Amino acid sequence: MEDLASPEPKPQPDYRELLERWGEISDLGRARALLAWDERTMMPASGAAGRAEQIATLARVRHERLTDDRLWELLERLAESTRDPDTIEAANVRAARRDCGRARLVPADLRAEMARSASRGETAWAAARPESNLAAFLPHLERNIELRRRYAACFEPTSHPYDPLLDDFEPGMPTSEARRLLTELREGLVPLVATLAEDPGAPEDSIWLGRNRFETDAQKRLASELLRLLPLPPGGWRLDPTLHPFATSIASGDIRITTRYDPDDLSFAFFSALHEAGHGIYEAGVPAESRRTPIGHPASLAFHESQSRLWENWVGRSRPFLEQALPLLRREFGDRFADLDAERLYRAANRIRPSLIRVDADEVTYNLHVALRFELELELFEGSLQAADLAEAWNARTEEYLGIAVPDHAHGVMQDVHWAAGSFGYFPTYTLGNIIAAQLWEAAAAELGDPDRLIAERDLETLRAWLAKRVHSHGARYLPAELAERALGGPPDPGSLLRRLSRKYGELYSL
Amino acid sequence: MEDLASPEPKPQPDYRELLERWGEISDLGRARALLAWDERTMMPASGAAGRAEQIATLARVRHERLTDDRLWELLERLAESTRDPDTIEAANVRAARRDCGRARLVPADLRAEMARSASRGETAWAAARPESNLAAFLPHLERNIELRRRYAACFEPTSHPYDPLLDDFEPGMPTSEARRLLTELREGLVPLVATLAEDPGAPEDSIWLGRNRFETDAQKRLASELLRLLPLPPGGWRLDPTLHPFATSIASGDIRITTRYDPDDLSFAFFSALHEAGHGIYEAGVPAESRRTPIGHPASLAFHESQSRLWENWVGRSRPFLEQALPLLRREFGDRFADLDAERLYRAANRIRPSLIRVDADEVTYNLHVALRFELELELFEGSLQAADLAEAWNARTEEYLGIAVPDHAHGVMQDVHWAAGSFGYFPTYTLGNIIAAQLWEAAAAELGDPDRLIAERDLETLRAWLAKRVHSHGARYLPAELAERALGGPPDPGSLLRRLSRKYGELYSL
Repeated sequence: MEDLASPEPKPQPDYRELLERWGEISDLGRARALLAWDERTMMPASGAAGRAEQIATLARVRHERLTDDRLWELLERLAESTRDPDTIEAANVRAARRDCGRARLVPADLRAEMARSASRGETAWAAARPESNLAAFLPHLERNIELRRRYAACFEPTSHPYDPLLDDFEPGMPTSEARRLLTELREGLVPLVATLAEDPGAPEDSIWLGRNRFETDAQKRLASELLRLLPLPPGGWRLDPTLHPFATSIASGDIRITTRYDPDDLSFAFFSALHEAGHGIYEAGVPAESRRTPIGHPASLAFHESQSRLWENWVGRSRPFLEQALPLLRREFGDRFADLDAERLYRAANRIRPSLIRVDADEVTYNLHVALRFELELELFEGSLQAADLAEAWNARTEEYLGIAVPDHAHGVMQDVHWAAGSFGYFPTYTLGNIIAAQLWEAAAAELGDPDRLIAERDLETLRAWLAKRVHSHGARYLPAELAERALGGPPDPGSLLRRLSRKYGELYSL
Repeated sequence: MEDLASPEPKPQPDYRELLERWGEISDLGRARALLAWDERTMMPASGAAGRAEQIATLARVRHERLTDDRLWELLERLAESTRDPDTIEAANVRAARRDCGRARLVPADLRAEMARSASRGETAWAAARPESNLAAFLPHLERNIELRRRYAACFEPTSHPYDPLLDDFEPGMPTSEARRLLTELREGLVPLVATLAEDPGAPEDSIWLGRNRFETDAQKRLASELLRLLPLPPGGWRLDPTLHPFATSIASGDIRITTRYDPDDLSFAFFSALHEAGHGIYEAGVPAESRRTPIGHPASLAFHESQSRLWENWVGRSRPFLEQALPLLRREFGDRFADLDAERLYRAANRIRPSLIRVDADEVTYNLHVALRFELELELFEGSLQAADLAEAWNARTEEYLGIAVPDHAHGVMQDVHWAAGSFGYFPTYTLGNIIAAQLWEAAAAELGDPDRLIAERDLETLRAWLAKRVHSHGARYLPAELAERALGGPPDPGSLLRRLSRKYGELYSL
């Protein structure tokens, strides 16, 4: 718009063609997302073979369109003719060039081989994990690492061999920065965890547990009611059971949240539903009119995780929220929660306990699980650690950071699917999300006043609107580093998170 | 295989390429089917705009691939080099050439215009129908007819202007044959209906009805239990509520059945669930290994409808099946069905009553609803009837065939969505399905003995296996006319159906 009066008119037909082409690329991606959601929530078991083909076809067709030479030529012309870098148009051209450029650097053969190896690795892992059969899994792990090395090499020159892997999830963040942030956080957390673990005044949290104690239908009603407390888009979301909880969005007004109902542990569905809803609130905040454009999606996995953690931990584990949840708990599980007061529920929701399994970890120790994975990944790709020595390194570091011994590989190096599926560079974004959430909370408090007051007043919409303005509404218009400047007022920094955890758990425990 | 020793080897790489290309075309179609299923069963309301874009993109990409010049050249080469016409390979080449050839004859502009006009027509119809506002709807109807005329003209020379419309649903069937079959049936049914309508010994069927009498959850359980009586693939189907019942298959082992639970009328869900399950049983019988090939789908809409009608009417309204359904009805709606015996339930499920609305019609009068629509379509495309005179012709023919007056257009010419959405040539397949079902039942009885005995022995698998051998397993290997020869032992013929209806209702009524 700003260029209308300038001597050279904008190449409007080129830009229109870009939006048309990207609309198709986006639609193919969203269709694939729906097929994946359906596979994990609705599909009859015997649909699996057909579904694998359908998803592979959609991915292939989308990739073909993304790497089409005509699209690349179009983007080259647009990059040359776009002069004002601050427009939405320029951001769309930049984002599209980034995505296309990266897609074009990787040969189709290598991509296919990675997909095959990931699929085989996941199958082998699923079979080997129950018996902690590391020997059966190791060749797949080695193959995945080798293929990811070749993948990373496609992006040379790079400052660090891990950079291209991290860049897939956290665009533009150098490995060195992720290392600095996670190391600083880890150094602050290890002594805190050690102190909390030995504290005799630790909160009592057995209220959440009980063998076959929590009936699924009652949990479903509870989770639905909980999500009704959050500012999800009215008429724009649904909640379904699955094996491994996730959230996905088929459109801004079509948010799919999933959770799992563990009959022995009510806290799993309670907090994972809030977590996935947080992802959903972010997706719903990306403006519908930008959805099919290059910037029409969240900025990065770390920003995504910052939203899920914020709604799960900062809102969901707060005193005022749990006070509102208590009547819902009493309605479904009356006999158990009748005599519990809100303060005891708050304490029960905030017990810190070093444990073996990442996905069951509390908000403090979780980051140590991530730190050890991230550090091991770096060593693998720097070449200072071999896959054959990974388990030993894992066990030693678990002892060092969490103070516990690993009894078997199923509870150790084989617990996560990520490496089995060839996914390296993903783990650090979990902790980066926690770091960003803490900074967002501080920034929100500075502008809106104490967010706990908003929660108490059932005015979560004010908090959501603030997050939407600062983060959601931009989609991927800015790279994460620039979005951090705009939303947090500076780069990611673990200081806020460390302050928050020390203060919160200092008060809760007898420190 | 048969050609391995012959001097000219088969063009195996070409055939492999055909299968690869068709696999993608098929996957894109199945993905679209899943998006459509989700839209009608699962999607949050505000997902509609995004979904329309996603479905349009999948349709466009699929169409592009289907009309790709390289695919057409490949098929030309394959047609020339394929010598034995009886192989699966030859059938795949024929089916692919048919589909591609038809797709290539229609200009992209016309297709887009038809899609737009259909979408606008459906919206206008939905708004105008409640007030029977024919004037508001008429321009859309006229536009749809004009576009369909232009569409049909793409296939010239044709023997009849309606041929290409019918051919979309019933490959290879000439209009003249459909006319002969439907006219012969109609001439047999009109006097039968007139007799039954005046019969004082008509069965009592009020057991199915009652204002807000049938609770949705109980109906859901009943429908699930009913479908468990049918030979659906174990672990390969699901049943969900929707507004307008349909069935679709995402894979042979992934059958999606839907129904609607009317709180005032239990018979709707009862019989529509059986009907849609019949469609699903056909889809599940198309071999998984052929699914992604050109012949990997049912042969035609008439054969499809023959299966839904067979399970709904021939099995579902039979004495032995209803005897098995009675305990299920009593379990969910005990007070109402406790004193009803199986014979009275059988009578209540087989009441013939001329009525205004096609989708609520019984198995006899249904065919008269179809006959009048088909005849009016023919007159419209032959030019002997103008859209402006359609309503008058509709009302006159309803009086003539069914003996009842049409009170308003909502209960007359505006009741169905088909014409609003530009769908002409579809209606006759409903009755052709009934005709084929009757012939299949006679053929099955001749080979297996009385099918009612199989139902009584809860051995519906034997009946399904016979249908699979005769019909399902061939997919679209044969055109409907050839499949009829093989499965029915001759061409479609209304004799079987007329005999069945006269006998059944002669016994049930006091004739």
